[in-house]
Amino acid sequence: MRTRFHENLDRLAAQLQAMCQRDRTAVAAGTNALLRADLELAEQAIDICRDLDTQRDHCEHAAVTLLALQAPVAGELRQVVTAIQLVGDLDRMGVLSEHIANIARRRHPACAVPVSVQPIVARMGAAAVAMATSAAAVLGSGDPGDAAALDRQDDTMDRLHHDLLAAVLDDDWDGGTAAAVDLTLLGRYYERFADHAVQVGRRTIFMSTGESFGDWSSPSGE
Amino acid sequence: MRTRFHENLDRLAAQLQAMCQRDRTAVAAGTNALLRADLELAEQAIDICRDLDTQRDHCEHAAVTLLALQAPVAGELRQVVTAIQLVGDLDRMGVLSEHIANIARRRHPACAVPVSVQPIVARMGAAAVAMATSAAAVLGSGDPGDAAALDRQDDTMDRLHHDLLAAVLDDDWDGGTAAAVDLTLLGRYYERFADHAVQVGRRTIFMSTGESFGDWSSPSGE
Repeated sequence: MRTRFHENLDRLAAQLQAMCQRDRTAVAAGTNALLRADLELAEQAIDICRDLDTQRDHCEHAAVTLLALQAPVAGELRQVVTAIQLVGDLDRMGVLSEHIANIARRRHPACAVPVSVQPIVARMGAAAVAMATSAAAVLGSGDPGDAAALDRQDDTMDRLHHDLLAAVLDDDWDGGTAAAVDLTLLGRYYERFADHAVQVGRRTIFMSTGESFGDWSSPSGE
Repeated sequence: MRTRFHENLDRLAAQLQAMCQRDRTAVAAGTNALLRADLELAEQAIDICRDLDTQRDHCEHAAVTLLALQAPVAGELRQVVTAIQLVGDLDRMGVLSEHIANIARRRHPACAVPVSVQPIVARMGAAAVAMATSAAAVLGSGDPGDAAALDRQDDTMDRLHHDLLAAVLDDDWDGGTAAAVDLTLLGRYYERFADHAVQVGRRTIFMSTGESFGDWSSPSGE
């Protein structure tokens, strides 16, 4: 039988899931804005990120209320503390999506991403969207299988990040220094987005079950 | 009269202060490693960051114990939750210092920083050390005056970061693309270190007094 505490925790997980779905929309819009040099999409992504601030405050409030009303101890207390840390990860995923959109906006009407590396950046964007989708699924299911998928997806992101830097550092690179700076930052933003998604998976399993999952200290992209 | 709760909170603040002092040592060592291309110093910085993992776990444990034993409510509960978020900031400051040291290690025996921008990077390193010093002071004093200093120091860091990117993007830049990539990342690491230091100041004031201080959502360098 589910206790009142677990019902409240499930409700909190649903709010966190909604936040994660917004992160997914934000990073998708940011990536499209970037690749199409689309100012309107960039503004949309930035607006979504502002909404996320409100969602973050609601989630934090819900977690603190859970602590206050139920005064959980031992393992259950740790689970709520983990939920508070989860809010931090989901918040950062939104901020990083905003940074991606900001690069698109700053370079408009030019495209920040030279044609030669557009396929890599498109795949990084797709990987970020896939990871936000997986993280939201974990928040809904609490299933360690979904969380394990995030580790594999993070490996893909790391490979893409490596390919992007290799392209920029290649002797044949003719995109110029400004594009190299933008791509270095973009690579970092996508990599950090992925790291946070991995953390969301690990923390969610702990929040849902009270059992540790994976090595919390070091997502592979860190 | 100080209550038992406040005595415990003061003890936690002292542990957080020790963590912040380690961040200071780590970023100082990382910067020196970088500017002198000193492999031994880089390894030292990386070792310090590993120690920080243990300190982080102790601080988190202390905060959760405080929640469990005292079951604070309302404002006092918020103060402990803020302490848990503070641990996250102090942890990231260590990780970012490690990233700086890793760039020094990766380029050894060459220096990752071209001579032309060494003065700017040296000043960014000094600003980071100064900000960790201020953040540790706030953790010791709980004084809003010390926290306000962090905002001014962050403005200095933002200006230096801007100068660094301007140098890299200048038509006269002859440091090459690899150095541009390293410097873009280094600029980002120092900027994020500073952002977290600002957050440490703001959160500490809230943790110590229960009163909000500054705009938590947006350190200027964000």
